[in-house]
Amino acid sequence: MPLVTVEALEGRSVQQKRDLVKAITDAVVNVYGVPRDAVRVVLRNNAKEDIAWGGILFCDK
Amino acid sequence: MPLVTVEALEGRSVQQKRDLVKAITDAVVNVYGVPRDAVRVVLRNNAKEDIAWGGILFCDK
Amino acid sequence: MPLVTVEALEGRSVQQKRDLVKAITDAVVNVYGVPRDAVRVVLRNNAKEDIAWGGILFCDK
Amino acid sequence: MPLVTVEALEGRSVQQKRDLVKAITDAVVNVYGVPRDAVRVVLRNNAKEDIAWGGILFCDK
Amino acid sequence: MPLVTVEALEGRSVQQKRDLVKAITDAVVNVYGVPRDAVRVVLRNNAKEDIAWGGILFCDK
Amino acid sequence: MPLVTVEALEGRSVQQKRDLVKAITDAVVNVYGVPRDAVRVVLRNNAKEDIAWGGILFCDK
Repeated sequence: MPLVTVEALEGRSVQQKRDLVKAITDAVVNVYGVPRDAVRVVLRNNAKEDIAWGGILFCDK
Repeated sequence: MPLVTVEALEGRSVQQKRDLVKAITDAVVNVYGVPRDAVRVVLRNNAKEDIAWGGILFCDK
Repeated sequence: MPLVTVEALEGRSVQQKRDLVKAITDAVVNVYGVPRDAVRVVLRNNAKEDIAWGGILFCDK
Repeated sequence: MPLVTVEALEGRSVQQKRDLVKAITDAVVNVYGVPRDAVRVVLRNNAKEDIAWGGILFCDK
Repeated sequence: MPLVTVEALEGRSVQQKRDLVKAITDAVVNVYGVPRDAVRVVLRNNAKEDIAWGGILFCDK
Repeated sequence: MPLVTVEALEGRSVQQKRDLVKAITDAVVNVYGVPRDAVRVVLRNNAKEDIAWGGILFCDK
């Protein structure tokens, strides 16, 4: 019963989210051979002031 | 020092959250035998466009 | 479709895990009114050298 | 800089893991339009006694 | 490629977040000896009704 | 009551872990102004076959 979490910058459209969960679910079903209904995907949307790379917030880059 | 995270659809009332963290904390204290103050619970509230099951977003079901 | 994650020190017996997931699932079903089969629980077991409180590893306490 | 976490039952081969991270990375790059090197994937492997569905551990099903 | 997640009560200023990710990144670089650009930090901001300690929501304390 | 999770490649010594949780706790206490005992740190240690960057497992790089 795989659970996939995708953490990315906020601002994606519903259509992008729709396409992403479909493509990721396809990947898990094809490679791991699990039933489609067993795959759960959660999307997390981070603000630019809540992610940092190299010690610098995205909102400062 | 157990940490419990509950990820569920957004829209629960504060009273439901209050009842849930009490019941979950009771469960952990009773079964694992840890002090009550050692149990931490975090609730995450997901929008329907941020969860998918079987490759389909909840907002499309 | 609630997902509960419990992070605790390693060393619990299978019976304790069995009792815990049952009690936590009861709590979520009763308070949130979701179908029992919709509740997923994941247990994470941390070594004492992988948790710290107040800046000190558990294996040093 | 998307981060994808896949939580699934332990026991997958390295080849399956290799194929899965490639397919998931393809999905994120194609749909979100991010550079390939920006995508990170973490795999978590759960024992059957550490996952439950409907209040019952997988090792008891 | 260490990933650090900090979960705390919401309400921190951008300056506090800026200082925190810098200090945490310094810590990881100094102790683990990884390149600065390899360190990613994600901040999660919890509402007081979404965290509990000892079975009681923070908004009730 | 901040919770910090550090996910990194396995293989760090206990001394490195000891130093890291101390330095990270210092950072959180200094910047967020919380009591030292309120800071919890969890370390996760990933195998090289369980992390990927740019679609390629670390064990293949």
